[in-house]
Amino acid sequence: MKFTAESILNVAWLRQVAGFPSAGVVVAVSGGLDSMTLLHALHTWCGDCRAQCLHVAHLNHGLRGEASTADAQLVAETAAQMGLDWTVERADIAQSVASGGGNLEAVARQVRYAFLRRTAERLGAAFVATAHTQSDQAETVLLRLVRGTSLAGLTAIAPLRPLAAGTPVQVIRPLLTVSRRQIVAYARYHGVRFREDVTNHDLSRARNRLRHRVLPELEQLNPQVGSALARLAAQAREDQQYLMTLAQSWLKQHARRAGGRLALPVSELLVLPPPIRRRVLHAVAQQAEYPAVASRHITAIEQTLLPGDAIGKCVDLTGGRQVRRIADALVFTEA
Amino acid sequence: MKFTAESILNVAWLRQVAGFPSAGVVVAVSGGLDSMTLLHALHTWCGDCRAQCLHVAHLNHGLRGEASTADAQLVAETAAQMGLDWTVERADIAQSVASGGGNLEAVARQVRYAFLRRTAERLGAAFVATAHTQSDQAETVLLRLVRGTSLAGLTAIAPLRPLAAGTPVQVIRPLLTVSRRQIVAYARYHGVRFREDVTNHDLSRARNRLRHRVLPELEQLNPQVGSALARLAAQAREDQQYLMTLAQSWLKQHARRAGGRLALPVSELLVLPPPIRRRVLHAVAQQAEYPAVASRHITAIEQTLLPGDAIGKCVDLTGGRQVRRIADALVFTEA
Repeated sequence: MKFTAESILNVAWLRQVAGFPSAGVVVAVSGGLDSMTLLHALHTWCGDCRAQCLHVAHLNHGLRGEASTADAQLVAETAAQMGLDWTVERADIAQSVASGGGNLEAVARQVRYAFLRRTAERLGAAFVATAHTQSDQAETVLLRLVRGTSLAGLTAIAPLRPLAAGTPVQVIRPLLTVSRRQIVAYARYHGVRFREDVTNHDLSRARNRLRHRVLPELEQLNPQVGSALARLAAQAREDQQYLMTLAQSWLKQHARRAGGRLALPVSELLVLPPPIRRRVLHAVAQQAEYPAVASRHITAIEQTLLPGDAIGKCVDLTGGRQVRRIADALVFTEA
Repeated sequence: MKFTAESILNVAWLRQVAGFPSAGVVVAVSGGLDSMTLLHALHTWCGDCRAQCLHVAHLNHGLRGEASTADAQLVAETAAQMGLDWTVERADIAQSVASGGGNLEAVARQVRYAFLRRTAERLGAAFVATAHTQSDQAETVLLRLVRGTSLAGLTAIAPLRPLAAGTPVQVIRPLLTVSRRQIVAYARYHGVRFREDVTNHDLSRARNRLRHRVLPELEQLNPQVGSALARLAAQAREDQQYLMTLAQSWLKQHARRAGGRLALPVSELLVLPPPIRRRVLHAVAQQAEYPAVASRHITAIEQTLLPGDAIGKCVDLTGGRQVRRIADALVFTEA
């Protein structure tokens, strides 16, 4: 008997996460295979504390008509059968996109995480659990690679991270070390009910293209490519976090703020090792409220550090902000 | 007119490489498109110093019969027409594999680099130039990713590195920022003569599979995927080199050698940030004369550092070597 909850949950790691699951877990369940399996495994693993620890949350995105309604029904039914409380909400994503603009998937994700945060905060739950798998991790790594990334992007999906700034709620991914194949086997063995999301087969989406066209080709070369990419993500996360710690501690020591401006000493920047310097510049240039800063912005800023005619030079950042070299200072200004 | 030598050689960077090309460059030329184009571009760019600076080297691997002989002839003819000296040698790779064993490609590479080193040392040349392109770089990054890698592997092909321990000769790759497409266009424009290597189309080789099946699929998602992967390699190299510098400086301070043994202090290892600790352990465990040490070896060594029953525990390394935890020391012993 190998299809125990422990065989798909990363329990050795989960046991080290303070407060999991006793501090409350909102399980994000779409009704699809991965999340219904996550719910089944957590329900089994939690044992007697399940009703106190677990809460099922489902957002009906209202994008697929009757199919969406059926998803919501299946999730509510399953929660009820398990003796768990649940929250089902309805959003009109198509309407949000029509009025506010933006990419459908990105808007759906934003609305969904806002719902999960609200639900967790209302219940006083410390965690939101999502069903991202090792296969999702591998696809995310590949997707980042294809679109262009550095070490930061290779860290891909975090096993545990704050849900957002300003909330104590954390997002946790208990299935992140388990392949889709293992999930399928577990679900089949236990007769886990789920609903197929037909959009998963739409090859026009980059992720699905990687899943159905590229990964099978790579598996011809290495059947374990999924776990190889997931392991890379985990190691990249360790390396990147350490390099960011060094960059942040340099910033704490050297950044000066005055009147909405932030200034860095050029002479000190010049003696920094390049990997730390790029991360210092990126940390200052990339602020949550502005569009993403690209590698070319950082390279342009680095060029103003060079001696000679760079003095007085100016680099435009996203959101109308600027970086200007003034004598020995690199000054970041708001729009 | 955009098909100048400067448009395919990374000249801004080459000008910063001390001694290039005046200290002597052995150009490794197989007779294929990339290396014949490299030769053409270097010959053009060097101008009047070409006869003093450049030397053409070709190793006939003797693997493809008459085709191999024709390759050698084309290279020698081209060098003669350019007024350059050349060295052509013949090796019997098939014979080497039959007698010594090993993978054909790996043996061929080893014999070829030994020939290039010998040629450069004989001529007193500081550099061996090879024709690796951005496309080779992208394929190498992908190949490493598929087979499983960490940051170290993502550094892929070095733009400039020592050819081997114990020689001042450096390997340089002047085409590493140029795509195969640009090379084809340059070669066509200048009527560069070259010979097709039919083994390039053999899909049974992992690299060719990536080239002909996977990369075209990825280019559907991002036509610039080649340069994205090459940029990642360059950034990974910077990050990895910096982390290795920190690991090496820790080793210099803390490693103790006595009687063929190397000992590291466990209490100091335990307070190291994990990315540095793993690199310290890898640097000690991986020695040139032994088979490759894997990530699982490092993880096993890290486990002996934990308190409690780990004391006295032992991890087997490659080549019959061992690592043993003895009180506060981690001791690496030869076979």
